[in-house]
Amino acid sequence: MALSRKPLKGMRELFPEEKRVEDYIVGQLRKAGSAYGFETYEAPVLEPLDLFLAKSGRELAMDQSYNFTDKGGRNLIMRPELTPSTARMVAAAGELIFPVKWMSFPLCYRYENTQRGRAREFLQFNLDILGVDGLEAELEIFLVLQRIMDGFSAVPGQYAIRYSSRRLASGVLSKSGFTPLEMQKAFAVIDKKDKMPLEKWEKWLYEEIADSSKAETIMKFASCEGLNSSWLSKLMAEDPAYSELLKFSNMLDRAGVDSASFESGVVRGLDYYTGIVFEVMDTGGENRRSICGGGRYDDLVGMFSKQNVSGVGFGLGILTLKLFLQTYGLIPDDLARLHPADIFLAVCTDDQREFALNLAERLRDADISVEMDLSRRNLSKQFKIADRKAIRYVVVIGPDEVDSGYVTIRDMNTGERVKIDIPHIREALSMMGN
Amino acid sequence: MALSRKPLKGMRELFPEEKRVEDYIVGQLRKAGSAYGFETYEAPVLEPLDLFLAKSGRELAMDQSYNFTDKGGRNLIMRPELTPSTARMVAAAGELIFPVKWMSFPLCYRYENTQRGRAREFLQFNLDILGVDGLEAELEIFLVLQRIMDGFSAVPGQYAIRYSSRRLASGVLSKSGFTPLEMQKAFAVIDKKDKMPLEKWEKWLYEEIADSSKAETIMKFASCEGLNSSWLSKLMAEDPAYSELLKFSNMLDRAGVDSASFESGVVRGLDYYTGIVFEVMDTGGENRRSICGGGRYDDLVGMFSKQNVSGVGFGLGILTLKLFLQTYGLIPDDLARLHPADIFLAVCTDDQREFALNLAERLRDADISVEMDLSRRNLSKQFKIADRKAIRYVVVIGPDEVDSGYVTIRDMNTGERVKIDIPHIREALSMMGN
Repeated sequence: MALSRKPLKGMRELFPEEKRVEDYIVGQLRKAGSAYGFETYEAPVLEPLDLFLAKSGRELAMDQSYNFTDKGGRNLIMRPELTPSTARMVAAAGELIFPVKWMSFPLCYRYENTQRGRAREFLQFNLDILGVDGLEAELEIFLVLQRIMDGFSAVPGQYAIRYSSRRLASGVLSKSGFTPLEMQKAFAVIDKKDKMPLEKWEKWLYEEIADSSKAETIMKFASCEGLNSSWLSKLMAEDPAYSELLKFSNMLDRAGVDSASFESGVVRGLDYYTGIVFEVMDTGGENRRSICGGGRYDDLVGMFSKQNVSGVGFGLGILTLKLFLQTYGLIPDDLARLHPADIFLAVCTDDQREFALNLAERLRDADISVEMDLSRRNLSKQFKIADRKAIRYVVVIGPDEVDSGYVTIRDMNTGERVKIDIPHIREALSMMGN
Repeated sequence: MALSRKPLKGMRELFPEEKRVEDYIVGQLRKAGSAYGFETYEAPVLEPLDLFLAKSGRELAMDQSYNFTDKGGRNLIMRPELTPSTARMVAAAGELIFPVKWMSFPLCYRYENTQRGRAREFLQFNLDILGVDGLEAELEIFLVLQRIMDGFSAVPGQYAIRYSSRRLASGVLSKSGFTPLEMQKAFAVIDKKDKMPLEKWEKWLYEEIADSSKAETIMKFASCEGLNSSWLSKLMAEDPAYSELLKFSNMLDRAGVDSASFESGVVRGLDYYTGIVFEVMDTGGENRRSICGGGRYDDLVGMFSKQNVSGVGFGLGILTLKLFLQTYGLIPDDLARLHPADIFLAVCTDDQREFALNLAERLRDADISVEMDLSRRNLSKQFKIADRKAIRYVVVIGPDEVDSGYVTIRDMNTGERVKIDIPHIREALSMMGN
C-alpha cells in the first residue's frame, strides 16, 4: 500500500523555496525586536492542559486545541498560544532583570477548520515586556510593530494598528448595568463585529443580547467614531480608563506612530487581557483580518507566584503576515531564486575527483559555499544541475586544470569567464561581483 | 490554587542565556551545511501514526512516542524523528532537482525516561542527500560532520565518527544461518554493545540468542578490530558489502576524514537503513553516547511513489552536542554575557523622555540597538539595569543633553567617556570598539 504523499490538513510543510520566504520574514521580525533589546527564549510545545484551562479560556483550551492523555495519564495540550508559558517562565526565574523584554517564535496548534491564512500548525512571533506598569511599555510595543511594518515597506492604508481598552469596555458596560457574565458575552459579540457584514452582526447582536437597551449600548460603543465621540466622552469623561486612552493617544502622536488609531470595537478574544488591547489589521480587501493581536495582562504571572508582574505583549501570525506581504508585493522577488551555493564545481572524470574535492574543501574553509558534483554525470548534465539550482558560478575541473593549477570561473548570469590560479579564486569572485 | 512553575518533565524550556547557546550551536550547524549547498525545509510535528509505523518500526512509533486520536478520529503521532516526513516530501515534490541536499532543525518527541542528554522534547539537526547512489554522498556527509566538529574546535579523541554497513552485518549473519527475525534481534543486541559494560553485554547476548554458535558469531563480528580483521576478511572477502567498505575507507583516507573509523558494532537502531550506517560518538568518559546517527536508506521514498530515490542522511541531537561541547569547554564564554542591546539610554526625568525616545528611534534606524528606560526609575536604578543586562554603553539624557544636542557615551567596561554631538554617535561607537 502506498502511503499518502500529503501531510495532515492544516500542517506546516515548507519546501526550501517557501522556507526561504519564512526565514526572510522571521529575520525581519527578529531584527525589529533586537533593535529594542528583546532577547529570545523558548517554551515547550507540549504543556499541561490545566495551564491553558486556567489562562486562555475553556473554549480555546478544550474545543479548539489538540489535547490528549499521555501514557502516564497526564492531560496534555499542544499549546494554542504562548503567553501562559511565558508568564510561568517569568514567575519561575529567580534572577530576572526587569523590565523583562522577551521574544520567541513558537510553533502553535489549534484544532480548527482551516482556511486561507488559518492553519492547524502555525509559527507565531511573540514579543512581551514584563515589569513595566506605565504606558511606556505599550508605546514601545507599538513602535516595534510600526518598525516591523516599515521594515517590510508596508504603508499605513495597507494596514492599521487599532487599539482600545478592556477597562474602557468594561467601564461602559458596567455603567449600563451589565453583569460579569453578560459582559463576557458582550466582548465575544464585539470581537466579531469586523468579521461579518455589519447588518448581519446587528441582527446577531439583538439575538444574543436579549435586553434591547443593553444591545443598543453595545452597538453605540462598538460604533464610536474615535475617542472624542460625544457619546463616549460624555459617558466616560471621569473614568481613568478613558483618561488613560487619551494620554496614550497623545503619546502615540508625539512618537510618530501614525499607523495607530483608537477603535472601540477592539477587545481581542483572550480572557486574560486587563488593559489596553490592540491588533494589526490587514485593511486591504483581500485578507481583511488581524495579523497580530495583543494587550496588557496584569494577573498572569501572579497565578504562579506571590510576586505580581504586569505584562504587555502580542502574538503575530507569520502565515497571516506572509499573505499580507504577498498581497502587496512586499516579498523580494529574488528570494525565489536564492542560490544554495556560490560555486558549482563540475568534475570531468573520476580522475579529477580527488583534486576537485580538495579544492572544494579549501574554498569552503574560506567561507565560499560549494556544491560539487556527486552524481558522476557528464558535464552537460552537471551544467544543467547548476543552472536549475541557480548557482551563479561554475568551475569545471578537468585534466588541464589539474595539470596547470589554473581554473576558469564562468558567471552563468553574464557569460563572463575569468581564468585564475587557485589561490586567487576568492579575489576573482569578489571582482566578478559575488 | 497556584499552578506549577515547572514545565512537564523532559520538555524544552530555554531562558535567554540558554537560548543563546542553542542559537550558537544551530548557527554553526547551519553554516556547515550551507558550505556544501544544503537548503533548509520544514515538515510538520504532527503526523499520521501510519507513516511512522511503516517506517521507523513499531517500538518507536507505538511505545516510545506521543500518539493519540484527534477530535476527527485520526491516529496521530508527534514525530519521534524526521526522516519519514522528508522521504514523503521528496516523493511529493514534482520538480525537484537531484541531488536533493536538504537540512532541517525539527523539534522531535519521544515518550521515554529522561536522563542527562535525553529529553522528551528535543531539537534535532537533520541533513540528507537524496538521488545519489554512489559513495560520494556518504563521503560528503562525513565531510559535513567533520566540518561541524572542526567548527567547534573539537578534536579527534574527544569524538569519533564510526561507521559500518547494514549490508555487511546482514551478510555476516546470513552466512551463519540467521533467519530474518533472528537478524532483527541480533541487530538490536549489537546496537546495545557500547551502551553497557562488556561483561554484562556478553551475558545478555547469550541469554537473548539461544543458539550458542550464533551468539558466538555475533560476538566475533561485534568485536572485529577493523576492516582487516582476519576473521572478517576471510568470511566476507568476496562480498560486495565488504568491498564497498574497503573502497569507502580508502575514500575517507584520501579526503582527510581522520576522525572516521570502521566499527563493526555500529548498526543503528532504525529499521530503514540499508547500506552504510554511522554515528558520531562522544568518546570522553562523561557522556559516552552518540551525538548523531545516520545511514543510507534505499527504500523510503519508494513507499510514496513509483520513482525510487536512494538517500543518505543523519539526525544529530542538539542537546547531546551541547553536553559534549560543555564537557570539553568548547562553548565560547562570552555567550553567557552577550548584551541584548548596544546602548542603554537612561532618562533623567519625564521632561527629557520625548527627546530620548526620538534619539533612540534614530539610532535604531541606523542599526544600533537601544534599550531605553521604560520604568521611570531614578538614574542609579537605570544604571543598575544596564549593568545587570551587560549593556556596554550607557548614554544619559538630561536637560543639558536636550539643550546642547551633545551626549556622553560611557563605556561601562573601560570607564571611557566620549562626548559627541548626536549625528556622530555611530562613528563614536565604532571608534570605541563596538
